Amino acid sequence: MEERIYFLFAVHNHQPVGNFDVVFEKSYKYAYEPFLNLLEKYPDVNVALHISGCLADWIKSHEPEYFNRLRGLVSRGQVEPICGGYYEPILPSISQRDRILQIKKGIKFIKDEFGILPKGFWVAERVWEPTLVKILSDMGIEYTFLDEEHFYWAGVQPDKIHGYYLVEDEGAILKIFPISKQLRYIIPFSGHPQVVIDYFYQVLKKINTSSLTLADDGEKFGIWPKTYEHVYEKGWLENFFQLISENKNKGWFGNISFSEYISKFPPTGSIYLPTASYFEMSEWSLPVESGKEFRDVLEYIENLSEHERSKIKRFLRGGIWRNFFVKYPESSNMHKKMLYVSSKLDIIMNKKNENRKKEEAKDSLLKGQCNCAYWHGVFGGLYLPHLRKAVYGNLIHAEKVINSILRGRSSWVSCEVKDYNLDTKDEVIMSNEALNVYIIPHYGGSICELDFLESEVNVCNTLSRREEVYHDIIRKKLWLQVPDLPSDGIKTIHQIIAVKEKDLEDYLCYDWYLRYSLLDHFLHPDTKFENFTCARYGEQGDFVNQPYTVENIEKKKGGMRINLYRKGIVWIGEEKVDIHVGKELILKKNVLDINYTLKNLSNKELLHLWFGVEFNFAFFDIAEKGTLSGVDFWEKSSVGENYKVKLFFSPKVELWFFPIYTVSASESGFERTLQGLCVLPNIKLQIVKDLPLKLSIRLVLEKNS
Amino acid sequence: MEERIYFLFAVHNHQPVGNFDVVFEKSYKYAYEPFLNLLEKYPDVNVALHISGCLADWIKSHEPEYFNRLRGLVSRGQVEPICGGYYEPILPSISQRDRILQIKKGIKFIKDEFGILPKGFWVAERVWEPTLVKILSDMGIEYTFLDEEHFYWAGVQPDKIHGYYLVEDEGAILKIFPISKQLRYIIPFSGHPQVVIDYFYQVLKKINTSSLTLADDGEKFGIWPKTYEHVYEKGWLENFFQLISENKNKGWFGNISFSEYISKFPPTGSIYLPTASYFEMSEWSLPVESGKEFRDVLEYIENLSEHERSKIKRFLRGGIWRNFFVKYPESSNMHKKMLYVSSKLDIIMNKKNENRKKEEAKDSLLKGQCNCAYWHGVFGGLYLPHLRKAVYGNLIHAEKVINSILRGRSSWVSCEVKDYNLDTKDEVIMSNEALNVYIIPHYGGSICELDFLESEVNVCNTLSRREEVYHDIIRKKLWLQVPDLPSDGIKTIHQIIAVKEKDLEDYLCYDWYLRYSLLDHFLHPDTKFENFTCARYGEQGDFVNQPYTVENIEKKKGGMRINLYRKGIVWIGEEKVDIHVGKELILKKNVLDINYTLKNLSNKELLHLWFGVEFNFAFFDIAEKGTLSGVDFWEKSSVGENYKVKLFFSPKVELWFFPIYTVSASESGFERTLQGLCVLPNIKLQIVKDLPLKLSIRLVLEKNS
Repeated sequence: MEERIYFLFAVHNHQPVGNFDVVFEKSYKYAYEPFLNLLEKYPDVNVALHISGCLADWIKSHEPEYFNRLRGLVSRGQVEPICGGYYEPILPSISQRDRILQIKKGIKFIKDEFGILPKGFWVAERVWEPTLVKILSDMGIEYTFLDEEHFYWAGVQPDKIHGYYLVEDEGAILKIFPISKQLRYIIPFSGHPQVVIDYFYQVLKKINTSSLTLADDGEKFGIWPKTYEHVYEKGWLENFFQLISENKNKGWFGNISFSEYISKFPPTGSIYLPTASYFEMSEWSLPVESGKEFRDVLEYIENLSEHERSKIKRFLRGGIWRNFFVKYPESSNMHKKMLYVSSKLDIIMNKKNENRKKEEAKDSLLKGQCNCAYWHGVFGGLYLPHLRKAVYGNLIHAEKVINSILRGRSSWVSCEVKDYNLDTKDEVIMSNEALNVYIIPHYGGSICELDFLESEVNVCNTLSRREEVYHDIIRKKLWLQVPDLPSDGIKTIHQIIAVKEKDLEDYLCYDWYLRYSLLDHFLHPDTKFENFTCARYGEQGDFVNQPYTVENIEKKKGGMRINLYRKGIVWIGEEKVDIHVGKELILKKNVLDINYTLKNLSNKELLHLWFGVEFNFAFFDIAEKGTLSGVDFWEKSSVGENYKVKLFFSPKVELWFFPIYTVSASESGFERTLQGLCVLPNIKLQIVKDLPLKLSIRLVLEKNS
Repeated sequence: MEERIYFLFAVHNHQPVGNFDVVFEKSYKYAYEPFLNLLEKYPDVNVALHISGCLADWIKSHEPEYFNRLRGLVSRGQVEPICGGYYEPILPSISQRDRILQIKKGIKFIKDEFGILPKGFWVAERVWEPTLVKILSDMGIEYTFLDEEHFYWAGVQPDKIHGYYLVEDEGAILKIFPISKQLRYIIPFSGHPQVVIDYFYQVLKKINTSSLTLADDGEKFGIWPKTYEHVYEKGWLENFFQLISENKNKGWFGNISFSEYISKFPPTGSIYLPTASYFEMSEWSLPVESGKEFRDVLEYIENLSEHERSKIKRFLRGGIWRNFFVKYPESSNMHKKMLYVSSKLDIIMNKKNENRKKEEAKDSLLKGQCNCAYWHGVFGGLYLPHLRKAVYGNLIHAEKVINSILRGRSSWVSCEVKDYNLDTKDEVIMSNEALNVYIIPHYGGSICELDFLESEVNVCNTLSRREEVYHDIIRKKLWLQVPDLPSDGIKTIHQIIAVKEKDLEDYLCYDWYLRYSLLDHFLHPDTKFENFTCARYGEQGDFVNQPYTVENIEKKKGGMRINLYRKGIVWIGEEKVDIHVGKELILKKNVLDINYTLKNLSNKELLHLWFGVEFNFAFFDIAEKGTLSGVDFWEKSSVGENYKVKLFFSPKVELWFFPIYTVSASESGFERTLQGLCVLPNIKLQIVKDLPLKLSIRLVLEKNS
């Protein structure tokens, strides 16, 4: 048997749709370009390279020379270009048709750019489901990479995590390389790259395998915290490439492309892999309560002997990626909107002509499937407003283009009663050429999405403040106890605990409801503004997130009306009284009129109530906080978000407004993020029995002038 | 909030395709019929009932009155009939088209029988994959049931395992009821059914839920060991039904149909479920080495406190069902043959006419997908020869019908070089109107499947003897230490440890290769027959399971020839010598001629070798053992298997033959099973350098006369 072990190396470069230009620039300068420079300098280093479509588009328009240089490396056989779903979607979360579109576009990019068909595929976040084999294989993909965990969880022994496996589905076959976790941690985080070479030698001697695979994010070479200094300034990567080049011809060590390896070596075996991603993802996707229990279990086994721990840990895992939609309803809202727009695309795809527009709508939809905004782990993800904004922006744009095909340019109005969010209860979607208003009758008769079409923005794109498993670290200031960086190498992204701001624990408030708009509050007489801002006040009614009944939907020339009501209760001291809240929503162009009717259904002649209607606006650059009195008009505009809100009140109201801050993890530490501006017009009312009380609010959305 | 808890009850009755008639009869008499009797007697007991197609077909032809009576229960609203994949396939293991065919047939059966479309679906062995939502939902299915484990593994908290959940895929929704594990254990295994009623009361008081579901095998009511006595003779089930009827109208307890429950109660929540089945299945599907380690982990946590154990166990699991194909290559062989026949069906489905034959082929294919023979846990499954025989019988029948459409009645011959078993290496399939010969060049140039078409039997359908996790119990006689049945109730199927025969440990031999045919041995001069029978002998060559090269494939009028060879080594004492083994296979009608050429490639003038060619025949009723000398003809026929083997040898040989026994678990205890007859013609040879030595074997298959 040939005693040689091959290092199989794949790098995945990605920036999400909607990321800041400055991040693209920085990533290019500190990671993607220097990596390319070194590849050019060390022609003996073989690597498979994936560049996500969203990043590739940016590079092509901002750094066109990059792909010229890359073509050189591809044509000399040093770099094997591989593809992925073009805009880096989590394939299991999108429809079968969209999976095919994303993969096709990924393949076409490689074909156009390098003149070859890619054999390798990058599975976004390695979120795996067994049926991916068939679709990838049918489209000509030959191999991909998944984590050690996928294989452990199929019962593969630790000493068999090498080479590649055959994975079958419906008679189709895909070759899957297990990614070595140890390599993932020591490249480039070991003190000296010789550690990596030594590791290969140890593995060869121990289990006599013929390859180990590292397939990992390119950002770890320069962009993740402290890595630029370590990887480039201190020369870790150059030393590593030098070591690869030197050792390559010594006999026992090799470094070839994945395709060449497949052509030379038989598979390690056959296997069927479960729904899985890397271990940490299984932690992150658990709902918070189970997540805390899982953390406790992991802490418990930390105290066992190495032998016992590793034995148990192989069979331990958390949840699956798709449950981010359960953990974060805001993620689910984007996802269900995406599925809704995707189903709309079906309607126009069969139309003749309009090919350019069809392509535009399709491409926007695919962009709106980019995974990063839909979940949260150690990267900001869902907590980053600009990523969610890009998702909504693209989905709204796709919808607009679809509507322009279906409806032309004249003004129109439509109303759909549809369970678009798939909770078995109907929502009402009122639309015209200016706005989409998504009303959830069964959740306080609130508005969960309000699309201002001219700016292609969902004005309700905010995020509730909720507990995360890692909040304990902030609350207990555990990060103070973490020792300094190890002298030998630097910390991996999973070992970093840092806070980017002092007293972050002061911002740990949790909302008990979702930060939608048109949420109807009855406040306790003692409610203080400050307490309301951190959701620590006495809610006296049961209207906020409880079901409203749809009474009437009426379509009029140029306008649309919906009437909702709820008969609920409000506590007054020790007593609860029956209250009717009716709200009429009238949509006309860019104006939404909301007319409230409050009725005292109790047996008391007169009730003193403190009523408020909550709005949450996706302003990510306005951190204002305060109260105003006697307000009949309020407006706020945001340069960044490119829209302006005007609110008119009759009668005059008190107005409370404050920023919603979340506290979440990012790769560089814990941080505070502005998720929107909460606005609560409120008024103290006296409601006489049998005398309905009327309140009106007019909401106008305009482009920022 | 209404303080009432509903008992939701589903029963699944199933007997596999190919099971013995006597088992069908017994199951009907001791389980299905008495259950129906009690349902008729207690009209207040509501149950959803699934009867697998293979069982339903038997009942309809043997006990036609059953369905008349059942229709009565359905029409009075007491029984809600639900469907499944008709022949109880593991849906993730069959193609998308076949999933649809199986489900459609399941739905049609309910429609034809009861005049209604089923809303509920039984997922065979609860083997779940996320994409099943879409296919089931698209076909009109509204709900199904899965185990607690599926929900734990998605991060659901133990106190939320009730009601039903919404599960989404590609925008489709399915409602899934978690099956209460506690109910699965106490129904009907508790001492008195009042225990069950009390449990409901406790749950209601503790977590104030509105339902718990039990969906379980109907065989546990009468057929599983000791259950008939407990459930019927001692009256457990009647008492239970009486308690249900009595408590039903008391206010706090209810029992309604799943459909009614769905119409009355909202979902408990939304969830996405991973690839999973019940916990035990996750154990069984692990390869043996990992399975033993998993058992150790489970034993380890048994010694922890209840609190710690339950906390850890929720996050522990084994493998996924599909890996039975990795654990048992014989299962994979059936599966890949099934996929191969399934792909052949595509060819004829588009043909015009021949509708009756097309239906026949399709139905045989679907029968060949019945799950039971493809896996092994606490039931015999794969270890039961008659179940494997039924799978092959149906697949071969489907193939025959397909060929009769494509080729008519004239005699024909074909040769396919194809990686039918999906290991990336080509097999050679020689076929004519009498035989299919599946040759695996890369595995000893052996025959892994030999179909005698007249009898619709795979003559190579044997099983290797391999280690199972539970063999330790037999080896160490641990079953002697197990305490007697508990006085309170009886043991569940998972608690039973029994052996059906003394000294079973004597049969624990493990084969180091698969028991195919045409395996080429070079025996150590000291080899004893007895040692060979238990795979404890000195193999001197490297031919048995090593690659042969295909040299030539020739098609002649009425016949077909393939030449294979391997240049390998044979150890003679301390020395290894180079040997060439060539084998020519000639197929003509029902005759397979095998001509061996052995060459001494060493630098020795004369080599003394002991050569043997191993055949394993699927005779499940011949337990003969012995040796014969000077044999030029041998024949063996089996009444049960309905075929006869004739072997002609030139020159004359010694002939060894012995039964292959496996030792495996079944629901009633550990048992020994005859898996086939091994036949080893062998001869001591002197091979002169440069003088090829010829040996011929003729294999003839005939119908048993």
